[in-house]
Amino acid sequence: MLESALISEFSRFYMSNISDHAIDLFSKIVRLKKYKTGDVLINKGTSKFYVIVEGIVASFSKNSQKDREYIRTIHLENYAFTDLFYQINDLKLAHIDLDTKTPEDYYKCLTSCTLLEGDFKDFIDLSASNHEISLLYNKINQTILLQVLKRLDRLSLLDATDRYKILKERIPQIENLIPQYQIASYLNITPVQLSRIRKKMYSE
Amino acid sequence: MLESALISEFSRFYMSNISDHAIDLFSKIVRLKKYKTGDVLINKGTSKFYVIVEGIVASFSKNSQKDREYIRTIHLENYAFTDLFYQINDLKLAHIDLDTKTPEDYYKCLTSCTLLEGDFKDFIDLSASNHEISLLYNKINQTILLQVLKRLDRLSLLDATDRYKILKERIPQIENLIPQYQIASYLNITPVQLSRIRKKMYSE
Repeated sequence: MLESALISEFSRFYMSNISDHAIDLFSKIVRLKKYKTGDVLINKGTSKFYVIVEGIVASFSKNSQKDREYIRTIHLENYAFTDLFYQINDLKLAHIDLDTKTPEDYYKCLTSCTLLEGDFKDFIDLSASNHEISLLYNKINQTILLQVLKRLDRLSLLDATDRYKILKERIPQIENLIPQYQIASYLNITPVQLSRIRKKMYSE
Repeated sequence: MLESALISEFSRFYMSNISDHAIDLFSKIVRLKKYKTGDVLINKGTSKFYVIVEGIVASFSKNSQKDREYIRTIHLENYAFTDLFYQINDLKLAHIDLDTKTPEDYYKCLTSCTLLEGDFKDFIDLSASNHEISLLYNKINQTILLQVLKRLDRLSLLDATDRYKILKERIPQIENLIPQYQIASYLNITPVQLSRIRKKMYSE
């Protein structure tokens, strides 16, 4: 089964010593699916999770007036994601951080994508019944957390030109995947600023 | 034992059905400690973790030239933290996000604090030997991840005045805890911009 080989590769990327048995259980709750550029994967209230086998997926978020949107994160192969905010009541986040509003966020394929899809509840149930899966989930969570912290550090500590260079290094074909105004929003600058940065970089 | 009661409160905040046995194991690897305002808790390469019982702790991060620093996150009671970046090699983060540089980050008490302190390796060992602890760790990770995503959304989608209002709502006494230039850096604006925002707000 192809799912099994792909789940094995994904799981061992995070946890090299995970057993074949755990991989077998994990692969039973996912199936391989193909998506086209522009397909929206997760929207408010769905309970799916995905593992990227091939392609680029971005998460988008809007303000509460819905008149402003930005690209929050951009993900490549071996990344896993779900709509964690969907579970906000469970997590009593309100107590820690006052603001209980669930963001208006969703995930979209920036290229054609091959993904493993499953129900997140099945995954949580599996992590509750299988210790190894729960350890795997810890490793995935740690990595995702570090990535988001790095994104935050870059936004706050690097200037826009350096942020743009890092994005280009990570995804060289980014210019052909998303419009300039979205690249600008990911970099937290205006399209005019981005245009100036590009002009300066390519004239050097 | 006081540690046991505090670990029970902390653990059940995230996972209401965790057993007394798991709490007992967890409380054996921590001890209660008091810290003063300004104490630095985690610095490069330490392997401690902390749970905030009382007080306010902030994480700071510097750029690689070390000429720029900002407050990355501010944490209140029931928050747990460690230097996750310390484990970067384990996590193969490099493969996912190119940039393998560990940030120059540390944690500092903004008020006098009561914390539970333990060795993060003991916690990871415990989560590997006890399934409930690994499930607890997942819940904690999920909550921290949501908080950082919210922080990222606010930086990118809200204007500085709204970000300042949210911070004031969350920590009303913030003005007395950290200097204005650090509040400005948390809000990702200049001290001059912050001063204008304050003047405008308090004249209304």
